[in-house]
Order: sequence, then structure tokens, then C-alpha cells
Amino acid sequence: MLHGILHYAHYLLESTIEKDETVIDATCGNGKDTLFLSNVVGANGHVLAFDIQAQAIQTTKQLIEDHQKTNVSVIHDSHENLEKYLPTKEMLIGGAVFNLGYLPKSDKSIITNAASTISAINTILHYLKTNGLIVIVVYYGHQGGQEEKEAVLKHVMQLSQRSYHVLQYRFINQKNNPPFIIAIEKRKRRY
Amino acid sequence: MLHGILHYAHYLLESTIEKDETVIDATCGNGKDTLFLSNVVGANGHVLAFDIQAQAIQTTKQLIEDHQKTNVSVIHDSHENLEKYLPTKEMLIGGAVFNLGYLPKSDKSIITNAASTISAINTILHYLKTNGLIVIVVYYGHQGGQEEKEAVLKHVMQLSQRSYHVLQYRFINQKNNPPFIIAIEKRKRRY
Repeated sequence: MLHGILHYAHYLLESTIEKDETVIDATCGNGKDTLFLSNVVGANGHVLAFDIQAQAIQTTKQLIEDHQKTNVSVIHDSHENLEKYLPTKEMLIGGAVFNLGYLPKSDKSIITNAASTISAINTILHYLKTNGLIVIVVYYGHQGGQEEKEAVLKHVMQLSQRSYHVLQYRFINQKNNPPFIIAIEKRKRRY
Repeated sequence: MLHGILHYAHYLLESTIEKDETVIDATCGNGKDTLFLSNVVGANGHVLAFDIQAQAIQTTKQLIEDHQKTNVSVIHDSHENLEKYLPTKEMLIGGAVFNLGYLPKSDKSIITNAASTISAINTILHYLKTNGLIVIVVYYGHQGGQEEKEAVLKHVMQLSQRSYHVLQYRFINQKNNPPFIIAIEKRKRRY
């Protein structure tokens, strides 16, 4: 059976992230991906979860607490600044997830934007382990969504095919701008 | 790790086709997918393998013989006519694969074309089992390839989302028109 978008996003993350790794939820929102990542990396792993919205931070903190997780840092800041929250400059990131768009059931005018998304992607690519993935779930039906979608696609399409595989996974017979996935895999360097 | 195109095509077929089913290789070409399907359905299954080119038929027959497979019918006819090779009108097809383009190392002017491809897709969808897949590997770098690609995409994009999931799986940062996958899944009817 074909995986739906959210299921496929989790499948990709789960199949590449190892126990004990440090991983990024760049847009923690309702916290569901944060909790998922927390389970994937295990008690000795670490999840850095970012959001610019107080409501998202609060919801995620509550969810993490309810599940008694101690391996998550919920950070009220833009993912654009994620580098300053990394413990060392030598560390490797095991994987990362983005959900582009707005926080469900919240203010639709607060949305991710292309410039900070692209900046965060570039930072993560720098620290990403070989064969690691950035999984981006692109929602774009809202106002401003098309522009972000176009800009992010344009950016990832020009990533060197020697250094990265960039996959688009999308259902093409659905109405109402269904979300799709972009997955960026860091390839082994060949000298 | 992200599956490459050919690997993902096989993964999809293998994950939905069951032993003993009847399946279709709509464009047998060098016979590799035919052999793969033959192994997936097992000795009591059946593969109907079509091609319009004598060279493809000969290569596929040889490959099947070399592997002592007895569950394959290699048919020198267009997939457009596949209905007449089905044993009964009540049968179910377990899955199907297409490789659109020309036969590698052969005459590049002999190519699949949109009209017969679409006709064969529609016939297979009629007989396809619930949750079964048609997997289409779209090569389009050759002369005439763009037109077929556009026409096939246009056709599958308008398939009802209540009846089918239509997935596109493609690498978007590669040069030279790399092949991509279209996968059509027949959904359970809801009454």
C-alpha cells in the first residue's frame, strides 16, 4: 500500500535515525513529531524542538511532560537560529523534520517563511550525518503558502546531485492543495 | 536511505503483489521486470509480458528460459490489446508495471506512446485488485518522451481521488531528465 504523507514522513525518519542521535524538529507545532522523534532516538538521544509561537511551545512541553520524556529541549526561537543551540560545532545531526505552514487551530497569519526555512535547511545540511535525511512536509494551501513552496522547491532543486538526493513524494490527483514531502539525503562524499 | 527509482518500483510491486496472482509487465523490454515478477508471484502465479518489438520478445523469452521459469507468457502484441489475453473476464490482476520510452540499446524511434499507454492503464485499472498497484517508470529524455509524459500525467491526475491514489515519486535535483515513478493504487470502494 502507498504510504500517506504523514506516515511516509515518519517512515523515512525512522529508517535513517539511530538511537542516541541528536535530531531536530524545526517546527514543533502541536508536538506530535517531537514526541515521535523522542521515541526514535531513545532516552540517550536528544531532540531539539523549535517554534516561534508561544502556543506551540506550551503544547509541545505539555505533551512531552505527559509522556515523561526527558530527552527533549523545547526551544522558543526560530529554527533560523538553531546553530547556537547545538552543543558543539563538531556534532552530527541524525535527521530533521519540518512542517511548513501554520499551526493547526491557531492564527493563520503566523506562518513559516521561505527565507528562514531555507536558512535552517542549509544549517542542518552542514551538520547532517552522511545518509541522514531532512524531511519537509509542505503545506501550501494557506495565504503565503504558494510563495514559500515555490521558493523552497527552487532552492532544493539546485542542490548538487553529487552531494544530495532530493526526492519529491506527492499525490497528484487530490484536490485542495494536499501536503507533499521533500526529502533531502546527504550523500557520501566521493574523493 | 531513499530508494532509487528502479529499487522503489520493485519495492512497491513486491509489497502489494501476492503469490499465485496474475500480473502484467506491459513493456517487457529486456525482460528484467518480467523475471522479477515471475519470482514474486511464484510457480503458481502468472506473468503476462507484452512488447511490440521482436527483439524485446526474443530477449525476454531467452531470459525466462535461462531461469527455467514456466509461469510467464511472453506476448508479441501491444499492451493496448491485453484484455484479449486475460483468461477470464472475472479475473483480478495483482499488479502491473510499465517502463515508458524505448528499448535500451535498440532503435530509439520505436517508443511507447501516450494513447496506447493510457488505454492499457485503463484496462488494467478495471481488472486490478483492490489495493493493487500499477507502477509506471517514466523515461522521457528521448524524442517524443516529453509529449507522452505530459499526456500520461494529465490522464492520471484526473483519476478520481475517491477511487485511486496517484503518487509521483521523483528526484528533483538531477540533470538529464531522470526517470520518475507514477504509482496508481486502486482504493477500496466505499458505499
